[in-house]
Amino acid sequence: MAEEQEEAAGREDDAEALRQQRIQEVLLAINAADEHRLGRLLDEMHPADVADLMEQVGDRTRQLLLRFWGRDIGGEILSELDEGVRAEVIEALPDSVLSEAVLDLESDDIVDLVENLEDDRKDAVLDALPAADRVAVEQALNWPEYSAGRLMQREVVTAPEHWTVGQTIDHLRREDRHLPEQFYHVILVDPTMTPTGYVTLGKLLSSARATALKSITEHSFRTVPVEMYEGDVAYIFNQYHLISVPVVDKDDRLVGVITIDDAMAVLDEEHGEDMLRLAGVTEESSLSDSAIETTRLRLPWLAVNLCTAILASLVIALFEDVIAQVVALAVLMPIVASMGGNAGTQSLTVAVRAIATKDLTVSNLWRVVGRELLVGMLNGVVFAIVMGVVALAWFGSAQIGLVIALAMVVNLAVAALAGILVPVTMERLGVDPALASGTFVTTVTDVVGFFAFLGTASMVLL
Amino acid sequence: MAEEQEEAAGREDDAEALRQQRIQEVLLAINAADEHRLGRLLDEMHPADVADLMEQVGDRTRQLLLRFWGRDIGGEILSELDEGVRAEVIEALPDSVLSEAVLDLESDDIVDLVENLEDDRKDAVLDALPAADRVAVEQALNWPEYSAGRLMQREVVTAPEHWTVGQTIDHLRREDRHLPEQFYHVILVDPTMTPTGYVTLGKLLSSARATALKSITEHSFRTVPVEMYEGDVAYIFNQYHLISVPVVDKDDRLVGVITIDDAMAVLDEEHGEDMLRLAGVTEESSLSDSAIETTRLRLPWLAVNLCTAILASLVIALFEDVIAQVVALAVLMPIVASMGGNAGTQSLTVAVRAIATKDLTVSNLWRVVGRELLVGMLNGVVFAIVMGVVALAWFGSAQIGLVIALAMVVNLAVAALAGILVPVTMERLGVDPALASGTFVTTVTDVVGFFAFLGTASMVLL
Repeated sequence: MAEEQEEAAGREDDAEALRQQRIQEVLLAINAADEHRLGRLLDEMHPADVADLMEQVGDRTRQLLLRFWGRDIGGEILSELDEGVRAEVIEALPDSVLSEAVLDLESDDIVDLVENLEDDRKDAVLDALPAADRVAVEQALNWPEYSAGRLMQREVVTAPEHWTVGQTIDHLRREDRHLPEQFYHVILVDPTMTPTGYVTLGKLLSSARATALKSITEHSFRTVPVEMYEGDVAYIFNQYHLISVPVVDKDDRLVGVITIDDAMAVLDEEHGEDMLRLAGVTEESSLSDSAIETTRLRLPWLAVNLCTAILASLVIALFEDVIAQVVALAVLMPIVASMGGNAGTQSLTVAVRAIATKDLTVSNLWRVVGRELLVGMLNGVVFAIVMGVVALAWFGSAQIGLVIALAMVVNLAVAALAGILVPVTMERLGVDPALASGTFVTTVTDVVGFFAFLGTASMVLL
Repeated sequence: MAEEQEEAAGREDDAEALRQQRIQEVLLAINAADEHRLGRLLDEMHPADVADLMEQVGDRTRQLLLRFWGRDIGGEILSELDEGVRAEVIEALPDSVLSEAVLDLESDDIVDLVENLEDDRKDAVLDALPAADRVAVEQALNWPEYSAGRLMQREVVTAPEHWTVGQTIDHLRREDRHLPEQFYHVILVDPTMTPTGYVTLGKLLSSARATALKSITEHSFRTVPVEMYEGDVAYIFNQYHLISVPVVDKDDRLVGVITIDDAMAVLDEEHGEDMLRLAGVTEESSLSDSAIETTRLRLPWLAVNLCTAILASLVIALFEDVIAQVVALAVLMPIVASMGGNAGTQSLTVAVRAIATKDLTVSNLWRVVGRELLVGMLNGVVFAIVMGVVALAWFGSAQIGLVIALAMVVNLAVAALAGILVPVTMERLGVDPALASGTFVTTVTDVVGFFAFLGTASMVLL
């Protein structure tokens, strides 16, 4: 494991080094105001890397880069940019350049690009599109945000069910210039445009011309409804190893197709959101946000946390008298809280991850809850003994050792329970289980921990 | 956002309901010992869903299921199972069934399946394979774990650079039965088997027979070295929207190809690992582990956390006298610790995520650090004012209000710094930045927080 990590890190450093060198060259060209050289460097780079570079440089550098090279910016780069930076860049581009850039994108990328533009810019871009694309984009924009309808590309490659391999290939040859950039299946449709199966291009290529398409369709075939949440679409791709999936409207008619690269991007975003939300960071945040913006985004959860922390303090306040007499309690309090918070976070994270991967379901919920409780108690007993001994040795009081030992068992058991029940409950309520569950779990562990610790203390020591 | 969440939840419930219904039917069939019905139900399900079901049911049910149906278990199901459950299932299967099951897998899946078997079982499986597959698997097993070599499939579809579309299609037709299940490109190779480009099957199908392959190759073409860490491979797929990538040895010779569905699975695992490690949970854990096993996996980080918590307590112990005189301090301590821990976790998570997505690099590190520090101080000032007022109102002491206000500013600033510097440093050291950074960050915030709070208190109040 460690070894693997080091190797990985080593390799990352190499790749990183190359990236950095390239970035330095670009920065030099910018500072030298060498438009020609800058253009050559950026044209050589992959749009995704140019986008990363634009996100990583400072605002001033980015503005210079745009001034020198903005006219040549391609649509692919725009669609790779983070929301924040993209808005800033698009802001700086004249409509003509923007429309030009958008022309070389597929409809799904155009949708992603224009959905957040103000109406006037949006219209400017749409007006510049060929009629067909414009209609496609406008229709896509009618589907709910984060739905399959927004994710799919409208360009589909279909064939009547009764066709043969030969007919299909001849048709594709004729269709040439109308074919989408990427497609991996030919979708079989009946006369009502309802998808009834699909054939991989590999099978198509390797089968005799006379072969009937119907005879070489894939078992993996399935469709998704156009309103499906994009996160669920990504899950289906990953679960069933799909490469592309036809999207159908409520009448089961084919309206588009989603390819795995878009699904992978969604999976990546979803994971990032879960991780950040667990930590009480809104998922809109990005490294390129300003300090003010970032503060605005993080402050709300800190405020929530303050309230819950004050709640814990109120519990302590109930026991001021015993603390005043036995200051050792004040010294040990943070250990109880910290251990509870840690154990709670462990089960919480496992639960949130399991919910995201659909591994935690009603069929195993109670078994898992039981397991977590048992784990919590086992760890509780272990650390009760350890801390009991430590406290005894430290303060020479068996009573204090007993008190913290008891608190440890109670707190770790409760932490384990809260860690799984909080996210599960939130999910039942239709709330994202990752959404600041952390704060709620630590509140429970703090309150229960302090109450158990100081409560038993006031009984045993007074 | 909220609305989207609810919709998503709603849809998940539907899908979930269907899943659960199917699971209930299977359980009924098992309890009724109705082998025939059980077989029919399971055969209708996707291997991935059968695998999930086997992970979610209890041990006893799983054993029954294996007894009634084990003989019919397919290789696909085995390769979908979690490590833990898979080991248990394979344990229960006779060599004959295991070898049979493995036969219908591609070499990459066989590798994934046998790499964790004990040698005798491994040999039993390998012996059952056709010579070619056996060699392929054994060679793959020579590549380091978590490397591209383990992830790739050996079955590749190549064509000499100078071929035309027609020649290639005719060749594929002849090759039919040797073609891999999934392939999306024909890889162009020179006489030394060095890949020089690739052609999508879509282009191949839509181009005239006379077209030279060279004239329709993809710009996106790139190869990965066979030793590359699988996580980096996944990153490249996601960054450059690849569908499949040729894998080359150190002499640049083609040794295999990785397809995006495998890369997506790796991306998914990597995310899960990051998330769990951040919470101090080793990534080997799975919901199907026993309570004992789970305790064993979680205890170590709790132990580390105990040591760091004791460290924080030692700081408090330094100020026993001031606490004894002003118990209000003991009441307020947890607020300082909790706010620091929370702010620290926020920047930590953002940093870990940014490192994983390679958005945090040497070129923007210091800008980001500066931003985090500023954010920390801004939040610090806000909550200093809030808590100052609260403390004043609560304990009627302007001094206590002043003390906690000061502690708040210091602690949130330090928390923000630690949150980003800890993971960055770990990464520089070649350690996974997600690995328990959380514990280290909260240690820093606890120690600094208590020191700032109680230190200023003892100066101001004594």
